[in-house]
Amino acid sequence: MKYFGNTIEYEIFGGSHESEIGVIAKGLPAGEKIDPEKLQSFLKRRAPGQNSWSTPRKEADIPIFESGLKDGVLTGETLRAVIKNTNIKSSDYKNILDVPRPGHADFTAYVKYGDSVNMAGGGPFSGRMTAPLCVLGGICLQILEKRGIYIGAHITRIGSVEGERFDPVNLSAEKLLAAGKEEFPAENPAAREKMQTEIEKYRQMSDSIGGIAECGIIGFPAGIGGPMNEGLESAISQIVFAIPAVKGIEFGAGFDVSCMAGSVNNDPFIIENGVIKTETNNHGGILGGISSGMPIIFRAAFKPTPSIGLPQKSVSLSRKEPETLVIKGRHDPCIVPRAIPILEAAAAIALLDVLQAQ
Amino acid sequence: MKYFGNTIEYEIFGGSHESEIGVIAKGLPAGEKIDPEKLQSFLKRRAPGQNSWSTPRKEADIPIFESGLKDGVLTGETLRAVIKNTNIKSSDYKNILDVPRPGHADFTAYVKYGDSVNMAGGGPFSGRMTAPLCVLGGICLQILEKRGIYIGAHITRIGSVEGERFDPVNLSAEKLLAAGKEEFPAENPAAREKMQTEIEKYRQMSDSIGGIAECGIIGFPAGIGGPMNEGLESAISQIVFAIPAVKGIEFGAGFDVSCMAGSVNNDPFIIENGVIKTETNNHGGILGGISSGMPIIFRAAFKPTPSIGLPQKSVSLSRKEPETLVIKGRHDPCIVPRAIPILEAAAAIALLDVLQAQ
Amino acid sequence: MKYFGNTIEYEIFGGSHESEIGVIAKGLPAGEKIDPEKLQSFLKRRAPGQNSWSTPRKEADIPIFESGLKDGVLTGETLRAVIKNTNIKSSDYKNILDVPRPGHADFTAYVKYGDSVNMAGGGPFSGRMTAPLCVLGGICLQILEKRGIYIGAHITRIGSVEGERFDPVNLSAEKLLAAGKEEFPAENPAAREKMQTEIEKYRQMSDSIGGIAECGIIGFPAGIGGPMNEGLESAISQIVFAIPAVKGIEFGAGFDVSCMAGSVNNDPFIIENGVIKTETNNHGGILGGISSGMPIIFRAAFKPTPSIGLPQKSVSLSRKEPETLVIKGRHDPCIVPRAIPILEAAAAIALLDVLQAQ
Amino acid sequence: MKYFGNTIEYEIFGGSHESEIGVIAKGLPAGEKIDPEKLQSFLKRRAPGQNSWSTPRKEADIPIFESGLKDGVLTGETLRAVIKNTNIKSSDYKNILDVPRPGHADFTAYVKYGDSVNMAGGGPFSGRMTAPLCVLGGICLQILEKRGIYIGAHITRIGSVEGERFDPVNLSAEKLLAAGKEEFPAENPAAREKMQTEIEKYRQMSDSIGGIAECGIIGFPAGIGGPMNEGLESAISQIVFAIPAVKGIEFGAGFDVSCMAGSVNNDPFIIENGVIKTETNNHGGILGGISSGMPIIFRAAFKPTPSIGLPQKSVSLSRKEPETLVIKGRHDPCIVPRAIPILEAAAAIALLDVLQAQ
Repeated sequence: MKYFGNTIEYEIFGGSHESEIGVIAKGLPAGEKIDPEKLQSFLKRRAPGQNSWSTPRKEADIPIFESGLKDGVLTGETLRAVIKNTNIKSSDYKNILDVPRPGHADFTAYVKYGDSVNMAGGGPFSGRMTAPLCVLGGICLQILEKRGIYIGAHITRIGSVEGERFDPVNLSAEKLLAAGKEEFPAENPAAREKMQTEIEKYRQMSDSIGGIAECGIIGFPAGIGGPMNEGLESAISQIVFAIPAVKGIEFGAGFDVSCMAGSVNNDPFIIENGVIKTETNNHGGILGGISSGMPIIFRAAFKPTPSIGLPQKSVSLSRKEPETLVIKGRHDPCIVPRAIPILEAAAAIALLDVLQAQ
Repeated sequence: MKYFGNTIEYEIFGGSHESEIGVIAKGLPAGEKIDPEKLQSFLKRRAPGQNSWSTPRKEADIPIFESGLKDGVLTGETLRAVIKNTNIKSSDYKNILDVPRPGHADFTAYVKYGDSVNMAGGGPFSGRMTAPLCVLGGICLQILEKRGIYIGAHITRIGSVEGERFDPVNLSAEKLLAAGKEEFPAENPAAREKMQTEIEKYRQMSDSIGGIAECGIIGFPAGIGGPMNEGLESAISQIVFAIPAVKGIEFGAGFDVSCMAGSVNNDPFIIENGVIKTETNNHGGILGGISSGMPIIFRAAFKPTPSIGLPQKSVSLSRKEPETLVIKGRHDPCIVPRAIPILEAAAAIALLDVLQAQ
Repeated sequence: MKYFGNTIEYEIFGGSHESEIGVIAKGLPAGEKIDPEKLQSFLKRRAPGQNSWSTPRKEADIPIFESGLKDGVLTGETLRAVIKNTNIKSSDYKNILDVPRPGHADFTAYVKYGDSVNMAGGGPFSGRMTAPLCVLGGICLQILEKRGIYIGAHITRIGSVEGERFDPVNLSAEKLLAAGKEEFPAENPAAREKMQTEIEKYRQMSDSIGGIAECGIIGFPAGIGGPMNEGLESAISQIVFAIPAVKGIEFGAGFDVSCMAGSVNNDPFIIENGVIKTETNNHGGILGGISSGMPIIFRAAFKPTPSIGLPQKSVSLSRKEPETLVIKGRHDPCIVPRAIPILEAAAAIALLDVLQAQ
Repeated sequence: MKYFGNTIEYEIFGGSHESEIGVIAKGLPAGEKIDPEKLQSFLKRRAPGQNSWSTPRKEADIPIFESGLKDGVLTGETLRAVIKNTNIKSSDYKNILDVPRPGHADFTAYVKYGDSVNMAGGGPFSGRMTAPLCVLGGICLQILEKRGIYIGAHITRIGSVEGERFDPVNLSAEKLLAAGKEEFPAENPAAREKMQTEIEKYRQMSDSIGGIAECGIIGFPAGIGGPMNEGLESAISQIVFAIPAVKGIEFGAGFDVSCMAGSVNNDPFIIENGVIKTETNNHGGILGGISSGMPIIFRAAFKPTPSIGLPQKSVSLSRKEPETLVIKGRHDPCIVPRAIPILEAAAAIALLDVLQAQ
């Protein structure tokens, strides 16, 4: 689970079956003030149990900073934040090891680790592991904001409901952060309602639904990154794919470039008030792996929550024969709303890392 | 340009403006036999100057192995392969530094490195830097094949022409490698013709066109990878985004998962001849970052070649005023055909790396 | 505190002032059986409070394995072992932050981290941080032993008392492990007594004394390591210098090579029962960074415990004026006896790491 | 041969048997001016063929900067410097592969790489590999000097001749750099003569002799480094042991701490002109892995050159029987004089790396 960047290293540790989860991180700037309330309200955006589209399991997700953050200031020491698991119920998942849940890591973890793996609550594959990621990312977000860099994400698709994308050329901090202020992270009220209705539809069918989230970054200076493996896309995608449920990522025009002519896709250079910009932003703020000064834009595809109430075809690992699986308990019918802050966190870590390397 | 994997490290060095380019790599298995002719014919698939959809610049791309490969055997020493640049014409790109080409790294490299950067021929951002990547990847491909692991890619889209995708459940080595044997890497003759016609259309307009390539891997054992940052998607995407022109990547059902219900996307587990498989393969062979034993499938979106003959809007960096740019010389009207072996190379490096870590 | 090896990565976390300390490690071989009692008795050799030459603070040092070790088997998951700090007395160290202890990290930590650093009990610089190192090292030792590789250390000098060194040519496992079985880790009874007497002398003066420990490794295969930065000396010294109090390390004949002729220092090659060996072992089992198959031998110099009862000259950081410091409480008059297992642990981690890379 | 630091990464590539050797480095500060003549005269200090104590092989050692340094300015791109091997005579070393030279890596390289390894001229183990290290180190030295940090080394022992050590408390740049200005790098004329006589004695016997070199650093700010594996000793020793022939390293009082009492070894804190210093400097400028602001002092032991003219006992690898080996050609009778700039280079790389991480 380790990420090894240019200046920041981190390790997410623990699992849903252990006494605690957390993050160890190095390379954060010493002396930086961190607003604990702001951090906590950021974490609350990811926390479950708050509404109809998320699991009712209540998890406080309050990080204890064992080192590296003292009296609201980063000390320069290794940061270690711990979140206690108050609600460990191994028994909930008793029969899962023998009958793997489709779409989950149960089977692959069994092949990799054998009988000894503890997959209670998802083990190290639990979506809960994104909580420590958000602790670190929330800190990075505050540091970047002080440097005039804003990161905001929102939902652009839930099932068949497509929402508006960010304007990749003129993107204000207000617009960028608007969705994050809503309980359901889409800025347009009409789209919000439609998306929630779509999720509710699948929830009532004991099913789930996927979606797409978009992340925008403004204020990020031009000239950061590098060619080939040093590129910003490699840095960002490496962390984004560490978020469980992500199956795709695209930058700027993304997959649409496949049907674009060069004359359309190439963003013309222009001068505005002495500053060189591009007229359009199909490149998503990154050219040759290096930031251009234009808004950085990327989108990630999230698969539907694999835990659904409907009966599913599976097999018994021990008896090597077919078995019908019914997963009990309530789960998020759609992971995307809670994934919005995670995406912001991932982008913040990757971008602070490369920014500091300059 | 460094990649720092679990067991393999590599560094692509040089640039189109230097006397040579090459790759330094560590962690390859000692004693392994490498067929030089097979490697050379793999490299030929990427080399330009062979047909109407690629630039007529003839580059031999013959690697000299300074160390690590002797008499066709990997010695266990650091591998160092060098490709001499025989055709350095700095003058070709004389005015580019002042008037950056839209869609290229000219501008961002200028911001990052200042006047001192040498962007002749694209410098370190040149597509030519993928030749050493293919040298390393071609070696990894041969090693994997001996372990029964086959990697093949093909074109699934050029502009508006959509081709067939691989069958993600029943995928034979024969099917997988079919496209690579064609001069134009699509296995279906009808699709091949349509795609070539599409490219020719843009070439005649002095324009270019984008596309999508798909890569499949079979024979890769289940249980390789790990949760979060240790996942196969992070490993693969990190290298794939190092390929210039890639703007998106997706695994399995990819972005389509956004409109799928969990009951549809979840791949049911079944037993076939005592082996546990999945009935469908929306997960693309990876669950929780770990291989499932099913074919690994991913697709990458390639933008249209930014170098086009049409006049384009740009600016003069020195005079800070608008300037119309006309790029001379011939360039690939579509990068995707030549990108097919590069995608295979990238996958081979990432997968051998994680496989060896087991 | 991170170590980033070829195949093993680890991170020691926490500090004497936190609720716990521990280690996170990756890259250990899955399926390996670990004897918990053997591990605990190894840890006991480092633990304090057992005799007159160590501090009477009783610390149980019982690791809780949160993940990676289950039912005595390494699962292949990330190993996370935690040792609870039962005995946190911040008040013991109250005045230290203002008056730094000579020979300690108090002053340098203050410069680096400012007022916010918590140096209670030594903070992250505490000798106690070697307990998690021994947890990891103790596991590596057991793994190596199963492959016929034995690591043992002993004291070769305490103050003015010099003990016998290992025979670097003919070294049996019995001889190697003899010292570790003694309460005071020197194999020769006469030397043991003299060394203990030497320590007792300094203890009664409220002073402390330094020493030298030697570590030997047998059964390690030839051909492991590599030139320059890949050398075994770099790997071993990197971890050994992470042990607080180490001020020097030497391999084979070490500093004595400075007054040796080449004709004396060069170890002649001979054949014994068809096996190529060296007649002498001034090279300490390492030639060109690569193991030769001969016993690996290195020695480390440990400074006297800086915490002594005698009044010492220091300064008040706040008042910027001289201050006499008297450290209360009892401390080890000599760190070397307890450092013996730490040295074995450090060697075991470094050597398993490079061995696995082969 | 890779070094992977906090901010600087480098790779030494090639070997005496290849067409070139060189260094690839990342993380150097962009825009920094480098004086090429100063660099060349630094490299000349290491180059052979200049006097009676070094081999008469003339190697120009003129680096060609393929990228990263242009018009005397670091561009921020990857630095790649190449030194051509003009003098490759594989035949010189023809019989060595079968009869390994005592004290050399011939035998261990054979075990590791098998028959395929090319050890002509030492291959990747050649002392010549330190030339590219000096190219990188020479650049780092110039960067550090602009920040007021001076690094100088000198010989403190050759065989039985012991020279003066640096004053570890009051050390001026003038004193530090004095030895480097002499053809034979010892500052005291009397010691110089004695040491040269000692070397000449062994040369005439067709033998060789070892020695000790000391390196001092002044102007390095306090507060750089960190606990355990982040310590300065780990960083420095990792590179110093990459220098062929080094068998030991010690910091400050080094191995002498073994016979020191804590009351003697502990350096009292004092205030001089408002600045906190230590009265003595047994800690060698490093406490708890962190710089104290006092001069950093370390010493390295170099073994005698293993290539000697005297007949030596060895074995035939193919025939598995004893063989007497006589090495022809002239070799350095003592490596230490030429190792002085290498030690400075190693220290400069390690210290710039950690300094930049702050």
